[in-house]
Amino acid sequence: MNEARGKFISLEGGEGAGKSTLLAGLREYIEQRGIALVQTREPGGTAVGEAVRAIVLDPAQHGLAAETELLLMFASRAQLVRELIEPALSAGQWVLCDRYADASYAYQGGGRGQPIARIAELERWACAGVKPDLTLLLDLPVATGRARAAGRGDADRIEVEADAFFERVRTSYRERAAAEPDRFRVIDASQSPAAVLQAAMRELAVLVGASPA
Amino acid sequence: MNEARGKFISLEGGEGAGKSTLLAGLREYIEQRGIALVQTREPGGTAVGEAVRAIVLDPAQHGLAAETELLLMFASRAQLVRELIEPALSAGQWVLCDRYADASYAYQGGGRGQPIARIAELERWACAGVKPDLTLLLDLPVATGRARAAGRGDADRIEVEADAFFERVRTSYRERAAAEPDRFRVIDASQSPAAVLQAAMRELAVLVGASPA
Ligand SMILES: Nc1ncnc2c1ncn2[C@@H]1O[C@H](COP(=O)(O)OP(=O)(O)OP(=O)(O)O)[C@@H](O)[C@H]1O
Ligand SMILES: Nc1ncnc2c1ncn2[C@@H]1O[C@H](COP(=O)(O)OP(=O)(O)OP(=O)(O)O)[C@@H](O)[C@H]1O
Ligand SMILES: [Mg+2]
Ligand SMILES: [Mg+2]
Repeated sequence: MNEARGKFISLEGGEGAGKSTLLAGLREYIEQRGIALVQTREPGGTAVGEAVRAIVLDPAQHGLAAETELLLMFASRAQLVRELIEPALSAGQWVLCDRYADASYAYQGGGRGQPIARIAELERWACAGVKPDLTLLLDLPVATGRARAAGRGDADRIEVEADAFFERVRTSYRERAAAEPDRFRVIDASQSPAAVLQAAMRELAVLVGASPA
Repeated sequence: MNEARGKFISLEGGEGAGKSTLLAGLREYIEQRGIALVQTREPGGTAVGEAVRAIVLDPAQHGLAAETELLLMFASRAQLVRELIEPALSAGQWVLCDRYADASYAYQGGGRGQPIARIAELERWACAGVKPDLTLLLDLPVATGRARAAGRGDADRIEVEADAFFERVRTSYRERAAAEPDRFRVIDASQSPAAVLQAAMRELAVLVGASPA
């Protein structure tokens, strides 16, 4: 039997927007429909990716150049696509990913000022043409997200950035969502966790219905 | 006083060609002339770079994609240029580096088949225009280099590649040297360590003479 290709769903948003929280709920929703699911995250998800994650989030790496950060993020992504995402999708499994390429446009592009053309060129060959079928953007005022994330203890190397940095990240995300309305769905992340999950499940319903289950 | 910009010398060659051995001799030669010298290596030379080195040389990372390897090498290089090489050169110090961008053309390009245009585009922005003033290529038959390196114990993730891989690396290096004869000097690395050092010192004499010392 020829298995249908799985669906690729990415979750995006600023710090403390509720991506990890939503992921757990969505996972349950998808699996209850008998769909085999692979959950992963960026940077990370592979041995190399997790090693890269340890570097880029380490507060001791305060001298990390923006170019280095961009290259490391795409190194993690290039490996994740080839080792995990593409094989899963080819095998008919769905993939739910906590951040993907849009995060580089928002953080390394909007946040750190790396040229968008440079990021697009990296995406072109590093991601091997693998794009999400659906991207849920959890949109939230910066202050709200930071207040939520603050409850988690020690800030990592990116969380210590100034508010202006996260405002640029948020603006970049919203611009990307507006430019690709077919792929993106913007969810008001200031709602309760239950309301956010409801909104996300409504967006997924279309994909789930289209699946052979 | 306006300090003259330092000179940047890179050493290239296949496994066991004698780069590390030569480096020690060259370092002495340069420092004896009263020139402040910074010695470094690739991948590595910075905290991020050494973390990247640990990943790419780890034999357990046998599934590392060629694209991931290329991005990691340039991540290490982008950081090394900004954190160490450019500041040293600007301060009038000389830099002696065990491998630099040419190694990516030879290993990730020739060896792993990554497109040369892709590597050139990464070099364009990741290296911030910093090119060696002189590149010494230690050229050696593959079998000779491998026999030398074998004496060192456990092989790393790159050393375990087949001879055909290292033949492509050697060919790439020689082609690059032929294409940029002003910057490259090819040294017959099958000679004795003393003869290799002699040949290298002859090449450096021009640079040293031109220095304000
Ligand atoms: N809708 C919500 N309303 C209020 N609090 C929330 C909501 N969603 C998540 N939280 C809480 O906010 C904090 C951050 O949530 P979570 O870790 O899911 O965010 P995140 O987007 O994954 O953050 P990061 O980008 O840092 O990984 C957690 O303490 C979580 O319990
Ligand atoms: N000219 C030479 N003749 C014979 N043996 C040599 C010569 N130069 C170095 N060696 C020996 O060959 C081995 C490899 O040399 P070295 O470590 O300097 O090479 P390398 O180019 O730095 O290798 P790698 O690329 O693996 O770092 C060492 O044991 C060294 O002592
Ligand atoms: Mg999270
Ligand atoms: Mg060496």
